Amino acid sequence: MKVVKFGGSSLANGDAFEQAIAIIKDDSARQIVVTSAPGKRFKNDIKVTDLLINYANAVINHADYSAIQNEIFSRYEEIGAHFGVQRDQLSVIHQIIVELPNGDYPDDNFLMAAFKAHGERLNARLMALVLQKLGINARFVDPKEAGLIVDGEPNNAIVDPQTYNNLAAFDYSADEKLIFPGFFGFTIDGNIATFSRGGSDITGAILARGFHADLYENFTDVDAIFSANPSIVNDPQPIKRMTYREMRELSYAGFSVFHDEALIPAIEGNIIVNVKNTHAPEKPGTLIVPDQGFHPEQIVTGIAGGKHYAALYLHKYLLNREAGFTLKILEILNKYGLPYEHMPSGIDDITIIFDRKLISDDLVQKLCDEVRATVNPDSLEWIDDYAVIMVVGEGMFNRVGVAAGIFTELAEHNIRISMINQGASRISIMIGTYKKDADNAIRAIYQHFFPEK
Amino acid sequence: MKVVKFGGSSLANGDAFEQAIAIIKDDSARQIVVTSAPGKRFKNDIKVTDLLINYANAVINHADYSAIQNEIFSRYEEIGAHFGVQRDQLSVIHQIIVELPNGDYPDDNFLMAAFKAHGERLNARLMALVLQKLGINARFVDPKEAGLIVDGEPNNAIVDPQTYNNLAAFDYSADEKLIFPGFFGFTIDGNIATFSRGGSDITGAILARGFHADLYENFTDVDAIFSANPSIVNDPQPIKRMTYREMRELSYAGFSVFHDEALIPAIEGNIIVNVKNTHAPEKPGTLIVPDQGFHPEQIVTGIAGGKHYAALYLHKYLLNREAGFTLKILEILNKYGLPYEHMPSGIDDITIIFDRKLISDDLVQKLCDEVRATVNPDSLEWIDDYAVIMVVGEGMFNRVGVAAGIFTELAEHNIRISMINQGASRISIMIGTYKKDADNAIRAIYQHFFPEK
Repeated sequence: MKVVKFGGSSLANGDAFEQAIAIIKDDSARQIVVTSAPGKRFKNDIKVTDLLINYANAVINHADYSAIQNEIFSRYEEIGAHFGVQRDQLSVIHQIIVELPNGDYPDDNFLMAAFKAHGERLNARLMALVLQKLGINARFVDPKEAGLIVDGEPNNAIVDPQTYNNLAAFDYSADEKLIFPGFFGFTIDGNIATFSRGGSDITGAILARGFHADLYENFTDVDAIFSANPSIVNDPQPIKRMTYREMRELSYAGFSVFHDEALIPAIEGNIIVNVKNTHAPEKPGTLIVPDQGFHPEQIVTGIAGGKHYAALYLHKYLLNREAGFTLKILEILNKYGLPYEHMPSGIDDITIIFDRKLISDDLVQKLCDEVRATVNPDSLEWIDDYAVIMVVGEGMFNRVGVAAGIFTELAEHNIRISMINQGASRISIMIGTYKKDADNAIRAIYQHFFPEK
Repeated sequence: MKVVKFGGSSLANGDAFEQAIAIIKDDSARQIVVTSAPGKRFKNDIKVTDLLINYANAVINHADYSAIQNEIFSRYEEIGAHFGVQRDQLSVIHQIIVELPNGDYPDDNFLMAAFKAHGERLNARLMALVLQKLGINARFVDPKEAGLIVDGEPNNAIVDPQTYNNLAAFDYSADEKLIFPGFFGFTIDGNIATFSRGGSDITGAILARGFHADLYENFTDVDAIFSANPSIVNDPQPIKRMTYREMRELSYAGFSVFHDEALIPAIEGNIIVNVKNTHAPEKPGTLIVPDQGFHPEQIVTGIAGGKHYAALYLHKYLLNREAGFTLKILEILNKYGLPYEHMPSGIDDITIIFDRKLISDDLVQKLCDEVRATVNPDSLEWIDDYAVIMVVGEGMFNRVGVAAGIFTELAEHNIRISMINQGASRISIMIGTYKKDADNAIRAIYQHFFPEK
């Protein structure tokens, strides 16, 4: 049995629905379907999720929301009409949209979560209706009914392990398709809470694990995950097969095709993930497989980069004799709830690299002041121009010459290196450089490991 | 005015004393002389400091110590005889040796410190006597008299900043030589406490700073500090000039010519250090100079290596989302008072490198158990086969192609790299490899940066 998840652009309108349905019908093993909310139909279109956010804000601010209600419903109505689903069959969807403000929400955050979740929730309901209309034995399954329980914040929930017992006990027949909405679950108190954005991937992975799927197919709008960002490298090679941890390192550093957190249930259930293109389902896509027993065909699997970093550089004479030096700094970071990315340390120096998006200018100042006051460094420097490049590949482990290749290439392209970090992870080399050099560096490294035939 | 410090082998016997005295006489600016204890005269000889340790242990254990007393005195007597100093002139030295057990020591640690310190203390007294005998205006100055105050543990003291005021106020004339014993000072309660072993270098640096010396000459038994260990690299190039921080990084990773801690007073006083050979004082030796305004003549200054490392490797999925992960580990290290050397961190991995000499097998087990219980890693590995190589040079900063050169060379020599750490310090690259490959790696890198003419 396979779990199949469709992204927002794969369910944006009637044509997209048709392609998705063809995929569902094409393989009887595709029994569990996870829907996203309808995405953009054209460049400046608004996603249904964003309409629902506007709707929720209007409710919270006591503004008029009748127009938004109609706009939302019209998106589902349009898709339904494509398949000849009658308006009265869609009345349940209309009613749910209209009655959303009457729900009982503990606070505005839960209200927002519940509104947002309905993009997926109503799309799953619609998909079931359309499939039934086409004579397919399909059933809408609500996360509440299936026991998909979540904990944590209303808009940043995490799955409760009890979910897996509930799903294993869920009763369904071998000849029916189950249509689940992605993105959300229910708290133990019965409130809707959503995963972080892009969280339909997470629902798919949870279902794949809970139902012990043979494969988790993740349908999106690209042919595969590519070995480099196509907006930087011209026509990059698609990745046929990669391990969980390769995916994790690459998605961290900028590969955003498959949601990061969604790998956890897949890893826990040892489920192979197949990222594929809804519009070209005949292409093999990318397989994301367990780390164990993987035999890499090439040295480097992918090259990613991010320019949203900054670094705090500290120098203090005899730093490493002070047992508590790093500890004190980490305590300050912890106090501000500020995660750091990496922390290369030298004899008398330490560099702490941050995601610049997570740290305001104000916090930078506070942080520098407090570090200065607490550990009294001989010098302290805040470096705002910091890009990080990640070269990832299971094939790199214990192999001679990989670093030589990378750094010779960068030297030939006259690219200055501000940081090298290898050895924590065995399957990647992390390189720090200046923002202006980052894209050139990625192209140079790509060229080296993926020479043109 | 210059401070001149002689190492133990430079004051081991009459011939060595003669060479040291020639050096003192050769330059009238050499006004402050710091003595070590007499070192080995031949390969299997015992240093006076070690005799004093045996003496102290005999006293502590109520064993017979008369033979040791005589053995110690005979070392000074032998040197005195070389210069025709009469036995009765040495009676003060004999008396001090014999009366050592009658001192008033707070505990056995202070007793040990006081005994050890007398290797230097009596040698300074002897040097003053010999110089006077030779018609030179020389005065023995005891650290107590000069106000060299120390804090901390009796056998691991640190200088009290008040010392510098005391030294600045110390009265002496322009035509006299002051002979100071190295290695120790006095606590505020009047007890002798010693610096860590090799601490005569520290005394020299303290005096150089306190007396505002123009130069601190450190006489030892090698022509210079070499760019690589002569027991690994054949006939390595002497280093003419290096910065404080280059010295620090190299001495950390295995260069032991000049005592690490001795750099602090030199840095604080902006004192240039000149490491020279007592037996070849005409050679320029190595200058250790301030970091600022240094214009490196070459890319790499030195290559050092140590094989006494071990590493703890941890992998945990989504590790870097746990703000407290590293913090918890550092708290465990702090609890055991265990400093770590470096801590390269990846996305889901962290490697903590330790000085293996500081951690018993028992503690390794405890540490692994506690880390496992506290942070619950997905995998944990203790790596005992860990060597660290340090390539150091002010000339490396912001220079393109350095990493390329190093890693290409290592690849050609088929050397596997387990860690690269660059970017914390701007003037070094740290490389992890296997113990068996470490010497080859040093030779390969040396060859690259110091090609034979």
